[in-house]
Amino acid sequence: MNRRESNSATTAPTLADIEAAAARIAGYVHRTPVLTSHRLDEWCTATLAFKCENLQKVGAFKARGASNAVLGLDDAAASRGVATHSSGNHGAALAMAAQRRGIPAHIVMPANAPAVKKAAVESYGAFIIECEPTLVAREETLVRVVSETGAEVVHPYDDARVIAGQGTVALELLEQVPELDVVVVPVGGGGLLAGVATAVKALKPSVEVVAAEPAGADDAFRSFGLGERQPQTNPQTIADGLRTSLGELNFPIIQRCVDTIVTVEEESIVKAMRLQWTRLKTVVEPSGAVSFAALLEHPERFRDRRVGVVISGGNVDLDHLPW
Amino acid sequence: MNRRESNSATTAPTLADIEAAAARIAGYVHRTPVLTSHRLDEWCTATLAFKCENLQKVGAFKARGASNAVLGLDDAAASRGVATHSSGNHGAALAMAAQRRGIPAHIVMPANAPAVKKAAVESYGAFIIECEPTLVAREETLVRVVSETGAEVVHPYDDARVIAGQGTVALELLEQVPELDVVVVPVGGGGLLAGVATAVKALKPSVEVVAAEPAGADDAFRSFGLGERQPQTNPQTIADGLRTSLGELNFPIIQRCVDTIVTVEEESIVKAMRLQWTRLKTVVEPSGAVSFAALLEHPERFRDRRVGVVISGGNVDLDHLPW
Repeated sequence: MNRRESNSATTAPTLADIEAAAARIAGYVHRTPVLTSHRLDEWCTATLAFKCENLQKVGAFKARGASNAVLGLDDAAASRGVATHSSGNHGAALAMAAQRRGIPAHIVMPANAPAVKKAAVESYGAFIIECEPTLVAREETLVRVVSETGAEVVHPYDDARVIAGQGTVALELLEQVPELDVVVVPVGGGGLLAGVATAVKALKPSVEVVAAEPAGADDAFRSFGLGERQPQTNPQTIADGLRTSLGELNFPIIQRCVDTIVTVEEESIVKAMRLQWTRLKTVVEPSGAVSFAALLEHPERFRDRRVGVVISGGNVDLDHLPW
Repeated sequence: MNRRESNSATTAPTLADIEAAAARIAGYVHRTPVLTSHRLDEWCTATLAFKCENLQKVGAFKARGASNAVLGLDDAAASRGVATHSSGNHGAALAMAAQRRGIPAHIVMPANAPAVKKAAVESYGAFIIECEPTLVAREETLVRVVSETGAEVVHPYDDARVIAGQGTVALELLEQVPELDVVVVPVGGGGLLAGVATAVKALKPSVEVVAAEPAGADDAFRSFGLGERQPQTNPQTIADGLRTSLGELNFPIIQRCVDTIVTVEEESIVKAMRLQWTRLKTVVEPSGAVSFAALLEHPERFRDRRVGVVISGGNVDLDHLPW
């Protein structure tokens, strides 16, 4: 291996970084299974391989990037702990990774975050710092926490270590299903998409990478079309994990490695989610169903092709299902 | 391989029969994944490996036994087709297997069977013969269908070919998780239990086999205790797949190869089902959750042990969830 491995948070990761991440996090995260369904293949007139990151630790691919960031710290930095602001899966993932390494995690959360999300973070022994539910308050609070603790900030997606970790999804998928024509990935902040696209284009450049985004939070679609990063304001989608804006580090990677971004309507997301529950028997959250929704909404694009469909997560409130 | 393989429907299957079944059905059914959860391990103070037959074709282990029976027929018998009476997963499984072999399947179903269950059977191209919703009417109708068609009857559990097929669950589980102390299996008619117990005791006699049964349909528990097969009358359980009585061929196998049968309350079944949905992100039907319910209700029996937990199926109506 003579490709250089970078450990920077701010330089786009290479295949070597993703391979190093895979070695680093092995044993800390699950190698998730790939599920298939003859019925869904018939439905879509395509051959589908669902990569189930909803079966990942903490119920989402976020466990990969967070683990890679935490495990890659040197001992001195690690001893000061890690910090982030998050109301979602990344907070729990970072708390989980920090607990495994035995270092402190400081998670800034809005005071109005759901009790179950706080409980998830607390269950991994992290410190929760509450703040007002605005982005400014979250960022200011995080700066204060870092100045007090010296903790290393691990951003949920705009961080090369996190992107490299998420890219390990693609290493596994290409091993598990060597013959693919196209891979479909949901896009929110772009951590998963940038990592997967980097790995796919390095290993199998002929495989098309398609990103799927809710039409009601289509900043990546617009940014990609305009060639300039557009912010997401007032997102309107059930896919709560995809309401964020594309990251600064993520965007040029996506420009370079992604072939297309397609949008999907809300009703397609719910339909895809329910089909995955009933046919694949797997619990998928709305954000996680956006990739399959792209197949339902744009069938002509995928007809008679071998499609890797990344299911990104499965954290959903069973008492509030969208049907 | 010098162990004799039997192809009889009425002689208890041997390990050789189960191994032959595995070879026969390979490529026709899924090798289902094993899922693990650190959280559920902590919860139970045990090391759990969930064998996910809810991810099997047609959503249940029934695909194995039905496929083994259909694929094992000689061409002359196969050409006359197969028949059964079923209002559940076995009917769909037999229809699926027959369709794969290109032979007719005749499924006797009560006229009041849910439309979705009829649609599932029809979707595999089977003939549905409706009858009054009584066991007598079902059996009489099946006799008539067989006399008219010459089809081979494949009983849902009281059939050695079916038992051998279901036993392939254990071959896979013991390969996937070689170090187990105990295997927990739901019991209804006893096809899955007899097959799994036969394989486990032949391959690893030191592994304990525990059957789990709803307290409201405890004929296997009572039969096992009394040493004589007791019928199930008026079953009261949400676990609709386990309301049936233990089969005639199944009972002596269970007496010989099963170590214990435990019963579980309804609230444990619902709790287990919901925990598997939320923690394992996998859609489990009530019958499929009975094995994990045994761990929740009898924790002392499993403490600090390595436990294989068979999830038997995942066919559930998402519009009528028990919470």
